[in-house]
Amino acid sequence: MPSSPVLFLAAIAPDGRATFAPADPAAPHVRVDDLGVTRGDGVFESVGVVGGVPQSLEHHLARFARSSAMTDLPAPDAAAWADAVHRAVAAHEPRPELLAKLIVTRGVEGTGVPTGWVLVTPGADYAQARTEGVDVLVLDRAYPGDVTTRAPWLLQGAKTLSYALNTAALRHARAHGAHDVVFVSSDGDVLEGPNSTVLARSRDRWVTPPPELGLLDGTTVGRALAFARARGDRAEVDRLTVADLAAADGVWLVSSGRLSAPVRSLDGVARPVDAAAQAALLHHLLTVHD
Amino acid sequence: MPSSPVLFLAAIAPDGRATFAPADPAAPHVRVDDLGVTRGDGVFESVGVVGGVPQSLEHHLARFARSSAMTDLPAPDAAAWADAVHRAVAAHEPRPELLAKLIVTRGVEGTGVPTGWVLVTPGADYAQARTEGVDVLVLDRAYPGDVTTRAPWLLQGAKTLSYALNTAALRHARAHGAHDVVFVSSDGDVLEGPNSTVLARSRDRWVTPPPELGLLDGTTVGRALAFARARGDRAEVDRLTVADLAAADGVWLVSSGRLSAPVRSLDGVARPVDAAAQAALLHHLLTVHD
Repeated sequence: MPSSPVLFLAAIAPDGRATFAPADPAAPHVRVDDLGVTRGDGVFESVGVVGGVPQSLEHHLARFARSSAMTDLPAPDAAAWADAVHRAVAAHEPRPELLAKLIVTRGVEGTGVPTGWVLVTPGADYAQARTEGVDVLVLDRAYPGDVTTRAPWLLQGAKTLSYALNTAALRHARAHGAHDVVFVSSDGDVLEGPNSTVLARSRDRWVTPPPELGLLDGTTVGRALAFARARGDRAEVDRLTVADLAAADGVWLVSSGRLSAPVRSLDGVARPVDAAAQAALLHHLLTVHD
Repeated sequence: MPSSPVLFLAAIAPDGRATFAPADPAAPHVRVDDLGVTRGDGVFESVGVVGGVPQSLEHHLARFARSSAMTDLPAPDAAAWADAVHRAVAAHEPRPELLAKLIVTRGVEGTGVPTGWVLVTPGADYAQARTEGVDVLVLDRAYPGDVTTRAPWLLQGAKTLSYALNTAALRHARAHGAHDVVFVSSDGDVLEGPNSTVLARSRDRWVTPPPELGLLDGTTVGRALAFARARGDRAEVDRLTVADLAAADGVWLVSSGRLSAPVRSLDGVARPVDAAAQAALLHHLLTVHD
């Protein structure tokens, strides 16, 4: 059943204070000289909404603030954005899962006034990825692990609107019969997916790579590690190689919309899907609100 | 004297065929779910217009087509885009210099229909950069010189809308008292500026780095090398190091709007501005139409 997205447009002051009002999502609201579209110059968050409850909203808003600081955008008005998310979710036809996207751009060139909005949509259908798993290509991200200290102007770790290389990597994977991608650094470190965080389990040890490698500080992986700890396992942030992924009992791509997708092959080599752990993890992500 | 921009909006078929119609540049024309703004997923060109004549338009359109191919966008309808540029320039109040921006995005998510437009504006005032020169920081781009063959999904050499790191590098330079940036690879090769091509002269030899290093194939540098050949000098595409730039008789950042800006310092170390060559080069770029 099709369902109408819900849009709340922001009016943002130069200091970041924001007020929101509902608007027609099918109408255009962005000018052709907005730096969001001419330069991919802005930041965003995608918040999973399960049973009407936005998940990890505080974590998302903290990351939104960090991305804004890294790109010299005004600190977002966290209370106003949180309120807009709740209002937009409440205005949407109820669904088991929704996705709330928060965007702020640098605004129309020369004005210094950011553009922003919250858009709530039904998420895509992730049933197959969650149940059957995903085929993953390992692709070179061609940057060294110390990129964030060595070249902060590259904005690694900020969630900016400049995602063309992420969508290109996903198209490359699909053109080669795979569903998704895991990037590795030029030092051989496992990094992240184009829109997901990598998580691996070996016996009772769950590991995700450190954000210091220039990665997004994943919100869903935080929830997954909480699940691991709750069942008495060890949850750790540590470096991983592709060989570690190949040898692990379970590997996942986790993200706000898809939640947890088990990796069933790496570069065409099948690997076991940890079905019991996936069922338990997905149940946690779908039912425990945090 | 302020002047109104001129906007021509495209209607683009899935196969790339395009028709254009004038529209109000002050009104919004882009939806909030257009992949151009949500993912910086699209490509662009900025064409300098001197004395009413778009410069190197064929070269720009060829690069537009190459960027489109690299990002799996439909091949642009070159004749229609060229016609739109000419009509938009003709509709603009006459100015010695104008800038025509051509943009195509992947369009509203799920539709497969690209969004596009041509916007003609007065360029910025580049008098000071052209006459006095620019202070430049050398910044690490943290990728290796073989990035285009090694990791084509990173889209190096495509002129995409995902320019956040370029604007971040320029903000970094300005925060450190400089005007602009020259990127270097992790192998120590001079690459390009965030929105310019690097050109160096030593005696009668003019050199720009090879696009194979993951650089945009510069249109203005092509015109500058034609100028060098016309005066009997050698024009070459070759690798350069920062030491080469420091030792050169003249170094320039060249681009469609600013045309040629001599580099007067590198990382805070003053270097001579080649005033005679700059005057001759700029005169060429402002008067010879190609």
